[in-house]
Parts: sequence; C-alpha cells; structure tokens
Amino acid sequence: MSYQLYYSPGACSMAVHIVLEELALPAGLKPVRVRDGDTAKPEYLAINPKGRVPALVIPGEAGVLTELPAILTFLAESHDRPVLLPSDALWRGRAQEWLAWLAGWMHGTGYGLIWRPHRFSADPDDAQALREQGLNVVAQANQDVTARLAQRGPWALGDQYSVVDPFLLVLFNWGGLVGLDMSEHTAWIEHTRCMLQRPAVNRVLEREAVTIPL
Amino acid sequence: MSYQLYYSPGACSMAVHIVLEELALPAGLKPVRVRDGDTAKPEYLAINPKGRVPALVIPGEAGVLTELPAILTFLAESHDRPVLLPSDALWRGRAQEWLAWLAGWMHGTGYGLIWRPHRFSADPDDAQALREQGLNVVAQANQDVTARLAQRGPWALGDQYSVVDPFLLVLFNWGGLVGLDMSEHTAWIEHTRCMLQRPAVNRVLEREAVTIPL
Ligand SMILES: N[C@@H](CCC(=O)N[C@@H](CS)C(=O)NCC(=O)O)C(=O)O
Ligand SMILES: N[C@@H](CCC(=O)N[C@@H](CS)C(=O)NCC(=O)O)C(=O)O
Repeated sequence: MSYQLYYSPGACSMAVHIVLEELALPAGLKPVRVRDGDTAKPEYLAINPKGRVPALVIPGEAGVLTELPAILTFLAESHDRPVLLPSDALWRGRAQEWLAWLAGWMHGTGYGLIWRPHRFSADPDDAQALREQGLNVVAQANQDVTARLAQRGPWALGDQYSVVDPFLLVLFNWGGLVGLDMSEHTAWIEHTRCMLQRPAVNRVLEREAVTIPL
Repeated sequence: MSYQLYYSPGACSMAVHIVLEELALPAGLKPVRVRDGDTAKPEYLAINPKGRVPALVIPGEAGVLTELPAILTFLAESHDRPVLLPSDALWRGRAQEWLAWLAGWMHGTGYGLIWRPHRFSADPDDAQALREQGLNVVAQANQDVTARLAQRGPWALGDQYSVVDPFLLVLFNWGGLVGLDMSEHTAWIEHTRCMLQRPAVNRVLEREAVTIPL
C-alpha cells in the first residue's frame, strides 16, 4: 500500500508531488485536471467534497487529507530522511507562517481572485475588478517573497531546504502564467535556479510536463 | 522575559490568548484594536508590516511571529503541558487541515469578504455583492464545521482538546455577530458549551470583555 495523490499538472499539488519525490516515496498519481473541470465532477467530489487538489490518500486512513500546508507537514513529519522541516519549534513556526500566508493569502485570495472571481462575487460584472485586484495582491506578494529571500536565502528558511520551497517554485511559475514580470525578482530567480538543480524537482517537472521559464 | 501578544478583543487573536492561558504562560498583552484602525497605524505596521493580529513577540527572536495557524502550532510544540496537539503525525495533519481551512478559507475568504470587501475589489460599488457572497461562504462553512463536529466530537479532533478548538470558539461567536442563525448548529453549540466549562476560556472572555451568546 502506498500514498495516492490527486493532482493537476502545474497546480499547487505539484509541491506535494515534489515532496513525495524528495522523500523517495512510491505514490500512485491520480490526475484530476483543473482546466478540464475534473475537480468539480461528481466522481471527484465523492472523494474530496472541497473539489480541490491536492488530496492525499493515506493507507489505512478513511478520508483523504486535504489542504496543502497540512499535507506537506504530514509528509515531512512522517518520513525523516531527508529532513524537510526543522526540529526546532521556532523554525517550525516560521515554516508554518510561510505556508499559512502563501496558501491563505497569496494563493487563496490573490490567485483565487484572478482565476476564480465567481468565488468572491455572484455578479459576473464584478469579475474584471476582482481580477485586477488579484493581480495587485499577487504583485505585492511577489515583492514580499523576494524581499524575504533576499534577506535570508537561498531557501525560505535560510540554509535549510524545506517543504516551503516546492510551494515557492509553483508560485514563481504562476507569476509568469498570469503575465507578471518575474525578471525583477532576483532573489526568487536564484531560488528557482537552486530548485532546478534538484533531481527530484526535475523528475516531477518532466512528469507533469511543466517548464519553468527562467 | 515572557511572550507578548498583540491582540484585538474578540478577534482571531483570542484563540492565541486562550492557548497562552491554557498553558499557564505569563504573557504581556498588547491591545491593537481593529475597530479603531490600530492595526493600520504606522506604529503597528513597524511591528507587523502585515497590519493584522495576532502577532507574537518571542523572547530572543527578532521579528514577531504572525499567522494564527503558525502561532498556535508554535505554542503547542514549545510547551507540552497540557498537550494541545496530538503526537501522531496523521492526527497532527488533521489539526493542520482544520487550521488551514478555517484560517485560509472560512476566515480569509468568508469573513474577509464580509468585513473587508475593499481587499477584494477596488470598486466600492462591488461591496454589497462581495458581502453577500461572504455570508454565503460563511453559512456553508458553518454547516461543514457542524457536520464534522456531529460526526466526531466533542472536540475538533474527537476526544482530544487541541489548539483548533479555541479558534472554533472565535468563529462560533463571529457567526452570531454577522447575523447568521447559530441556533441550528447543535453539535457546534455543544462544542461551545464544552469550551465555556474551561476556566482558561472564561478568564480570557472576561479579560477581553467578550460574551458568547448561547
Ligand atoms: N486551500 C487549498 C486550496 C487548493 C486549491 O485551490 N487548488 C486548486 C489548484 S492549485 C484547485 O484545485 N482548483 C480547482 C478549483 O478551484 O475548482 C489547499 O491549500 O490545498
Ligand atoms: N492570516 C492571518 C489573518 C489575521 C487577521 O486577518 N486578523 C484580523 C483580526 S481577526 C485583523 O487583524 N484585521 C485587521 C485588518 O484587517 O485590518 C492570520 O491567520 O493570522
């Protein structure tokens, strides 16, 4: 019995995919393509009523585990080689601070507004203003990420590579996808270069057919 | 040297306040009233550039720790009596799943839309539609919380009281504040009653001058 990951190529689930690969865990990969509306289909809602990816099937556990920060934390705590979360409580707190802010604010509000404006207002006429605001939120968040990486890099937690870093790679890629200029984000480009030197990362990019523009 | 908590009475920071009290930790309490706009004042932005509460000052650490899920996790991991997070990785994952969803979706999107519509659209004409959608999101989330507590209570993690529960108390209170009918949420009312039997909870409610309508 092994984990099974419901994922969509290039989505935030790619961070989980990378972590599974870093931990050398065999996992069944179940594609649920966001672009094709698969996350909203009855078959998938029966598995994850939230209608989102990632969702992780854990052997012996009833009900998938959802929410990216929770899945990343669970995997890092369940498998200790390589170490993907610090042991010190304060650094662990800093990792959770990153994850909560990236998932809740940058992804949930920023990219949510850009890609799912109807989730925020039932009036279709509002969509344009919502998308614009989403771009503002993401542009500012991009600057905040870059500033922190510049202050203490190369990884999100400084010297220690952690589960936060694959999430940052996904978000770097999304910045370009929504048309923001990522070329000014020097420290984040450096982070992305470091990511692209990792064999686990490259295997996942190839498997999901994602190319990171650098 | 002790912790210092930047909080606003009745805000999500109340969950941290309760956890500090449960752990019997002496902490300096620094009020930053959201209603008076204190979170947006330059003095506070110099401490927490995100302009939100809670923010925790940790002795010896430069820079406050932010994000409710991160602060709750940090406190539970740093102090082991009483136990406020499970030791089992899977249950810890379930705790993080609750926290990410409550903070990112229910609070960040649902209550964000109701209380801070301008954060989602720069067009003031959209505010009404945004607030209505926020109420829909919260009403549905209330049902989801209640369904899970009914399935396995009395606490968020079943038999084990954890840092998730004080956050649920805050959100129960907010449901009434935004005018939703909480009287149908039987399992959540039961949860709230259990919370109100805890001396630590009552001390905090008194100190923040918050009355939970039951
Ligand atoms: N809070 C969730 C959000 C996950 C999420 O929104 N995933 C996107 C893909 S990146 C998705 O499934 N979208 C499908 C949809 O919105 O219908 C988490 O952190 O896991
Ligand atoms: N993602 C943050 C959100 C915190 C938050 O939004 N707190 C509210 C009070 S419940 C606040 O400070 N609001 C002030 C404002 O929005 O200006 C967390 O989980 O800590």
